[in-house]
Amino acid sequence: MVMKVHGSVFSAPTMRVLIALHEKDLEFKFVFVDLRAGKHRKELFLALNPFGQVPAFEYGDLKLFESRAITQYIAHVYEDKGTPLVCEGKANIFSWMEVEAHQFDPAASKLHWELVYKSKIGMATDAADKEANLAKVLDIYEARLSQYKYLSCDCFTLADLHHLSALTSLMGTLVKKLLDARPKVSAWVADIMTPPALAKVLAMRNQQ
Amino acid sequence: MVMKVHGSVFSAPTMRVLIALHEKDLEFKFVFVDLRAGKHRKELFLALNPFGQVPAFEYGDLKLFESRAITQYIAHVYEDKGTPLVCEGKANIFSWMEVEAHQFDPAASKLHWELVYKSKIGMATDAADKEANLAKVLDIYEARLSQYKYLSCDCFTLADLHHLSALTSLMGTLVKKLLDARPKVSAWVADIMTPPALAKVLAMRNQQ
Repeated sequence: MVMKVHGSVFSAPTMRVLIALHEKDLEFKFVFVDLRAGKHRKELFLALNPFGQVPAFEYGDLKLFESRAITQYIAHVYEDKGTPLVCEGKANIFSWMEVEAHQFDPAASKLHWELVYKSKIGMATDAADKEANLAKVLDIYEARLSQYKYLSCDCFTLADLHHLSALTSLMGTLVKKLLDARPKVSAWVADIMTPPALAKVLAMRNQQ
Repeated sequence: MVMKVHGSVFSAPTMRVLIALHEKDLEFKFVFVDLRAGKHRKELFLALNPFGQVPAFEYGDLKLFESRAITQYIAHVYEDKGTPLVCEGKANIFSWMEVEAHQFDPAASKLHWELVYKSKIGMATDAADKEANLAKVLDIYEARLSQYKYLSCDCFTLADLHHLSALTSLMGTLVKKLLDARPKVSAWVADIMTPPALAKVLAMRNQQ
């Protein structure tokens, strides 16, 4: 029985899961889902995730979807393997995982849409208010990271890891300026973006 | 030392936390945050949640925010007290909690905005596409609830509980029609909306 991740290495949520699996040194099979060909909307994939979104995770009879659900499953079931991704007894991880999902990610995604997709398809971009929204979130991160080394506590956890895929896609944009302007945030980004797990996932991209 | 919930009984995320506390038979103090007076944007509240959103949870030195983070903390730390809200060994709860947060709630909130807020302030409503989006989610729920009694498995869990606040606010709208049209969904809604915990929270509203 082998773990399978169905997805695309160019999808941020798929990347999130792949990074977690590499952090945990788990063996898995990557099954490429051709999003351009609409394979995520076909019956075969909908049996894994009825919402038709990558990634989906399969391990024997267990079928999971939603990237943050898969990473939490991996982090809890394989708590003692590879990098610890939860910090026992530290409840703040719950809040900061939600912050990534409901504050950082929507702000980062909207800005990414303006800065990357819209310019790619030749649409006029209007990033000012989206940039201001992300800046507000980063100001709160700067204050938090002045108190703790990582977002939830002094340990690297899923609350940090969940940011990696969005940060990767934003580093080549003006968002880097927003990060660089905040010393604690930029030190945190530099720290969390160095682990071999992320490099392994980026290498998977080059093989595609 | 007493648990404190800072929020408003008319806020759906605050309700979510209050329902979980009542399900767990936990004593707590409710601290009303006057949103109309902008108290959630003042220093006192921002020390509890830098993002300035209700609810916030305080228990001695522990300060948590984001409603689903607070309910998860409560469900895990008080696992053996009151109603069990997680189902040991069932990983699907992770996926279905994320479904509520990223599929159901955005669709329900956007429809609520159209049907309730916009009509309240005299704006023209345009609910058709938002209704279709929620209907798609409910179709997937109907299929899921044909396999299991509740969303994550055959036990009532946080994945179900997290829906209660949005369902309460939508029951008086045309959304009831969408629910009624799906037998499994409407049986599930009738089931999860009966527990005394929800009635206790609604009673708190009447006292305000």
